[in-house]
Amino acid sequence: MTNTTQAAFLLQLQHILPTDRVYTDPVDCYAYAYDNSRNYHSPIAVVFPLTIEEVQAVIVLCNEHQVPVVPRGRGTGTAGGSVPEAGGVALSLERMDKIISIDPDNRMAIVEPGVLNQVLQDEIKPVGFFWPPDPSSAAYCSIGGNLATCAAGPHAVKYGVARDHILGLKAVTGKGEIIKTGCYTSKGVVGYDLTRLLVGSEGTLAVICEATLKLTPLPKFTGGITAEFVDTESCAKAIAAIMAQPYTPSALEFLDNGALTLIRSRHQNLLPENARAYLMIEVDGSQQEITEATEAILQACQVAGLIEAKPAHDTKALWAARKALSPLLKDIAPKKINEDIAVPVSHLPALLTGLEQLAAQHQISNVNFGHAGNGNIHVNLLVNPDNADEMKRAYQCLDEVFSLVLSLQGTLSGEHGVGMAKRPFVPREIDATTIGVMKSLKLTFDPNNVLNPGKLFPA
Amino acid sequence: MTNTTQAAFLLQLQHILPTDRVYTDPVDCYAYAYDNSRNYHSPIAVVFPLTIEEVQAVIVLCNEHQVPVVPRGRGTGTAGGSVPEAGGVALSLERMDKIISIDPDNRMAIVEPGVLNQVLQDEIKPVGFFWPPDPSSAAYCSIGGNLATCAAGPHAVKYGVARDHILGLKAVTGKGEIIKTGCYTSKGVVGYDLTRLLVGSEGTLAVICEATLKLTPLPKFTGGITAEFVDTESCAKAIAAIMAQPYTPSALEFLDNGALTLIRSRHQNLLPENARAYLMIEVDGSQQEITEATEAILQACQVAGLIEAKPAHDTKALWAARKALSPLLKDIAPKKINEDIAVPVSHLPALLTGLEQLAAQHQISNVNFGHAGNGNIHVNLLVNPDNADEMKRAYQCLDEVFSLVLSLQGTLSGEHGVGMAKRPFVPREIDATTIGVMKSLKLTFDPNNVLNPGKLFPA
Repeated sequence: MTNTTQAAFLLQLQHILPTDRVYTDPVDCYAYAYDNSRNYHSPIAVVFPLTIEEVQAVIVLCNEHQVPVVPRGRGTGTAGGSVPEAGGVALSLERMDKIISIDPDNRMAIVEPGVLNQVLQDEIKPVGFFWPPDPSSAAYCSIGGNLATCAAGPHAVKYGVARDHILGLKAVTGKGEIIKTGCYTSKGVVGYDLTRLLVGSEGTLAVICEATLKLTPLPKFTGGITAEFVDTESCAKAIAAIMAQPYTPSALEFLDNGALTLIRSRHQNLLPENARAYLMIEVDGSQQEITEATEAILQACQVAGLIEAKPAHDTKALWAARKALSPLLKDIAPKKINEDIAVPVSHLPALLTGLEQLAAQHQISNVNFGHAGNGNIHVNLLVNPDNADEMKRAYQCLDEVFSLVLSLQGTLSGEHGVGMAKRPFVPREIDATTIGVMKSLKLTFDPNNVLNPGKLFPA
Repeated sequence: MTNTTQAAFLLQLQHILPTDRVYTDPVDCYAYAYDNSRNYHSPIAVVFPLTIEEVQAVIVLCNEHQVPVVPRGRGTGTAGGSVPEAGGVALSLERMDKIISIDPDNRMAIVEPGVLNQVLQDEIKPVGFFWPPDPSSAAYCSIGGNLATCAAGPHAVKYGVARDHILGLKAVTGKGEIIKTGCYTSKGVVGYDLTRLLVGSEGTLAVICEATLKLTPLPKFTGGITAEFVDTESCAKAIAAIMAQPYTPSALEFLDNGALTLIRSRHQNLLPENARAYLMIEVDGSQQEITEATEAILQACQVAGLIEAKPAHDTKALWAARKALSPLLKDIAPKKINEDIAVPVSHLPALLTGLEQLAAQHQISNVNFGHAGNGNIHVNLLVNPDNADEMKRAYQCLDEVFSLVLSLQGTLSGEHGVGMAKRPFVPREIDATTIGVMKSLKLTFDPNNVLNPGKLFPA
């Protein structure tokens, strides 16, 4: 785009939206150049539509001028999905932040995409509900972003992920068409399931402008359990045993020795002294269910290598260690490589011992933790990007981690998505024919390839 | 297709599959000309592939010759989805009936599409699981058909529908490409969600050849409740009240006065004498949950017009009346018009009273029953197709029923699907732009329009 054509384009953009909703000053645009990955590319403009018609007008204009348009929620994604790497317009949904309706009788809510996850939770809690997706960024991330990435979190092990809690959408396709998917009923089979096709498509097919969410009744009571192990292997066996019995925990979070050491270094008394692998478990339901589930889970923890498993009476304190971890990791290794692979839970012992071996072999410090009940482990390689040799070893290690995961019937991303970060590795998980079908779908929704171009698939 | 080209095509088909797996005799083909709708059209051949490669070979050949190919499970669908209305080849998946693996540790099973729903349930029950979709045809219908239609049934109110219990698929697109969707983990976000796009697409995009299913632990205990009302309106209010409190029943089935009268005429002592609207309710979980849920549901039933609500100690007997109904309906009106609309539960009072008014106004006998917890009502207009005047009134009535449903934020099909039966009405629920996107998707998967052509959308 020449300076002249860019100027003409921006002028037209400023005809669509008032001045206070079009940023073109590079200083203003800076905050929309990145997300929670380490990628950065400045857009030529940031727009803040308030209505689906405004979203449509922006996309139509971008089609006319062949300018990329990259939708974004609050930029908390870790895979670079909302980074405007090809330049163009960052389309921020943050000002479309109305809760349109809350309908407790039908267990539904209709929201605009910019509503924050926590804001929604706070509104629906008094009427007895929650919306299960609970990424650790819940306080800052938006429902639109949660849907675009099919977000999950600790409670997914019992309650499922974003795609399980959505009934319908209004969206604008990459072509600039307004579509309405799904229905306002808990069951419906008229037409193709475009709703779930858009969920997790990371803004490459359409921009979500309104969502009808399915709400879940709050559990009556919540209980906690902690379990300490002498090593990762014994802990992984306990995880598999917990998931093989019928009481599904509402959360089953794992911390490895690296994570425990890190937390202990900054927070005294938060963790037991001897544990080299640790589980934080939540159960919910009636008091009897909690009693029965606790008993069954404590039983499943009885593997060789268990130090102690016990009910945690203060369930808030239970999560303190887990919550302390992510900021600490950012602190000690701001440019860590952060993956979120998942394997079938029965293969967690092989995965976790394999991860330890690979880290040792390549001399990379690593910290592994995460949503063990889904077999979804956040693998963090703590690297210094200025150390070329370390980076080389880290990428070799990562490559072998992915091979290990796929050999264990796993997936390269349990919840973070592909974005830019995992794009080169997608062909190792999905065959060329299936990728071809996905690329055809992309073109159906977005024939000029203006909507978040280049994301999700290798070129 | 001339006789000569048809003969040449059939000869090539017989090269792909052995004689005992290609039917061409019209007598043999007859059983594959219809489903459980009242539509009939004979295919020119029926094929019985055993592998995904054989399915692919058939579809490739049909593309070469521009011959329609219509996949089918066991033909229990009620919307005509598997009727080969454009002729061509009926592709029966019934001989691909292997359970490939049952993996209790990971709560998964891999099955071929021809496995019967009940056969799967019988295999997974001893290891503590069930697969929630439970259409009334469970004993005869196949998992492949359940997925192609996004089947549901009474337990959907608590456990969801087919799309909620699937992790991955192997399928052959209409173009003849083998694709592999989803993953073998309980979470995964790599690539577009083709799995759920195929679920409910009624064999118009791809033929499902293998499915990785998510299994659900069997509930520990089950309890029953029945409730009798003086009229439909009071019953509908109780349904809405039951669903507005937090204990979700595992089934909440409704019978209207027409249904009750019909059952009473053939089965003495199955039903209370005075009820003019009736609920059969199931709750499951721990004993304490059942106790608490029963109490809460009995409380929600306390509306003006309640005759009696009480626990049903024999839960098997509870379902006897409901199960007796469908055969009776077929018996008295073999060519009844059978719809399965759904509305938000809070609108059930308006729907059910509206249905009564419309039937009276158009002088049509009707029987309404169904999955009230999902607002999913089976509306049966008991007509005699030889009575032209009655048929005219019935279609006028049906038209107004659909208008009523849509005015109440409902959908034209909760679980049966569109097939041929509801095709003309789809544009009343889905706008033209969104239908346009769906049709583009169809062409992406099936550019020559050979796979179940003409289904789902009006021409």
